[in-house]
Amino acid sequence: MTEQVSMRVAVVRGGRIVVEERPIPEPGSGEVLVRTLACGICGSDLHLFKHGASMMQLVERLGGVPDNLTDGLVMGHEFVAQIVRFGADTPRRFAAGDRVCAVPFLQIDGAPVSIGASSRTIGAYAEYFLLNESGLIRIPDRVPTAAAALTEPLAIGVHAVAKGNVQPHDTAVVIGCGPIGLACIAVLKLRGVKRILAADLSAKRRDLARLFGADEVVDAREHSVFDGVGATETAVIFECVGAPGMIDQIVKRAPIGARVVVAGICSQEDAFIPMLAVAKELSFQFVSFYRADEFKAALAMLANDAIKWREWITATVPLELVAEAFEALQRSDQHAKILIVPPGDALAGTGRPAALDS
Amino acid sequence: MTEQVSMRVAVVRGGRIVVEERPIPEPGSGEVLVRTLACGICGSDLHLFKHGASMMQLVERLGGVPDNLTDGLVMGHEFVAQIVRFGADTPRRFAAGDRVCAVPFLQIDGAPVSIGASSRTIGAYAEYFLLNESGLIRIPDRVPTAAAALTEPLAIGVHAVAKGNVQPHDTAVVIGCGPIGLACIAVLKLRGVKRILAADLSAKRRDLARLFGADEVVDAREHSVFDGVGATETAVIFECVGAPGMIDQIVKRAPIGARVVVAGICSQEDAFIPMLAVAKELSFQFVSFYRADEFKAALAMLANDAIKWREWITATVPLELVAEAFEALQRSDQHAKILIVPPGDALAGTGRPAALDS
Repeated sequence: MTEQVSMRVAVVRGGRIVVEERPIPEPGSGEVLVRTLACGICGSDLHLFKHGASMMQLVERLGGVPDNLTDGLVMGHEFVAQIVRFGADTPRRFAAGDRVCAVPFLQIDGAPVSIGASSRTIGAYAEYFLLNESGLIRIPDRVPTAAAALTEPLAIGVHAVAKGNVQPHDTAVVIGCGPIGLACIAVLKLRGVKRILAADLSAKRRDLARLFGADEVVDAREHSVFDGVGATETAVIFECVGAPGMIDQIVKRAPIGARVVVAGICSQEDAFIPMLAVAKELSFQFVSFYRADEFKAALAMLANDAIKWREWITATVPLELVAEAFEALQRSDQHAKILIVPPGDALAGTGRPAALDS
Repeated sequence: MTEQVSMRVAVVRGGRIVVEERPIPEPGSGEVLVRTLACGICGSDLHLFKHGASMMQLVERLGGVPDNLTDGLVMGHEFVAQIVRFGADTPRRFAAGDRVCAVPFLQIDGAPVSIGASSRTIGAYAEYFLLNESGLIRIPDRVPTAAAALTEPLAIGVHAVAKGNVQPHDTAVVIGCGPIGLACIAVLKLRGVKRILAADLSAKRRDLARLFGADEVVDAREHSVFDGVGATETAVIFECVGAPGMIDQIVKRAPIGARVVVAGICSQEDAFIPMLAVAKELSFQFVSFYRADEFKAALAMLANDAIKWREWITATVPLELVAEAFEALQRSDQHAKILIVPPGDALAGTGRPAALDS
């Protein structure tokens, strides 16, 4: 238990990320107050930070109610946390001190609101935040906190591979080997897919792709990954970059009948020639998120040490260095996942320094 | 049998469609010479005529071998024909005089080449052309020639609906009620789909859509067809227009989780925002063509009089009026399918004049 009444949060303010003091929130009906033990920085956080204003203009243009994502937003949805105290109407199936994770939504007025991507919630870029007890998932004692913090991005991979309906004899092509691309590769390997090709511009990420199970990895500046796909192979392509031009490139180079799973988040317009996709009978499944059972399957993979989570994490930083971590992720090609951790806490098993330059 | 040695063909020549004389082709090994009884004008023929040059530039840019589609091409792939004589090595499971149709491919040097969309074949915009005996499908005596001529476009609908995996409780949304949209509506109705919405700019085509089985049909200038789709409905959307902007409009307006089947042929660039498709987890299945069993299923539907084929055909013309028919299809919104028929032949059961102005 804590006597603290205020906490530190990393917040988007005036186009920058700054650390501010906020009151520790009080858990309401069905809610628990939790302390953040680790929180990953997601590519979508970077995207929200960079493009939040234009994304909200888009929401407004489509008739939706835009959220204030440009000022006051506390991000963070890839978390491991520890229960501090319970609000009213909580069945208390858990105890204070339990380590938990959860699908990042909080029930507000009977509807789920995303944690870490809405100004109506506090995300895990904070010392404390709120969760519904009903959504908590206990982390087995044997699972290191750092490993469990990768549950959320791995769940995206579990979901993407499931939506691609990938069979062992299919050829998987993963374009972009950031955290989501790596998650896809790891899950494809666990699902017994015999041939996994991958492409990335970064040598570091290409090494990680090989480590995670890719059979052939190319530098997209030197070779097209599609050169390695025979015309008669059944290809399932994972688009994990999210930049304009990717859809067009896939439509032009994918073999006939290919299935494409798009996990990359591109909020700018992307142009392609539909006739080419028609002629090849391509299919595109756009994916985001995952089901609760897929989230639990991801935690089980990490608990069984089936995922190379130590190598996935390339740095750990305190809240005060989130802004620098964002810059490092955008500037450097040496990073995969950066975790935010409380400064005093030991992250058992990572053996990682807080350095961003490595 | 015929004593003729030359025949008339409607051919693309110098950016126009003109009627020329050509030698009647000699059936080679495995081939039969057939006489055209009816041939539909397909939207893809119009597209090839208008955009053939830019389509071939695209083929070349993608590393393919462009065909000469701008000069000397004889189109026509929606045909009913009558066997005239047999080449060598034909098992002669059929007899001269039999009425047949076929999936429009001719084996050349062991590989299938499309009939009516390649300068290496002669399409059915001709008095005579060649087919492989092995691919022939006999038309039952009770099926009028005009009805059987709709087998090919109907097969596109059979295939599109199958690829969309539409279930009776799904809400189908058909955008564009030209021949392919009408084919989709007819097949959806036969498949027992309870709710079929459709949109078209033409009053005539909206009437046809209702006749074919659409429950609600809107003028896209006045209402969005998506206004009629509830947020909780499982929607399967059929894009049968093939113009720039359609994909973007669907991505913006489709409900969450919608499946989109794209049958429209758009050879220009189309832009959309991938993030919106990701957020809604939309899927796109691009389709062209059909399997042989789907082609036969389409013929069976027409043979069973399950399709309103009389209303589908809005004019019949001789070869000499193909150019005018192309103009009419592009200029007027009063047409659905126009059939090319030999001038002397009676098209049993159509009761249609050759007029293009109706």
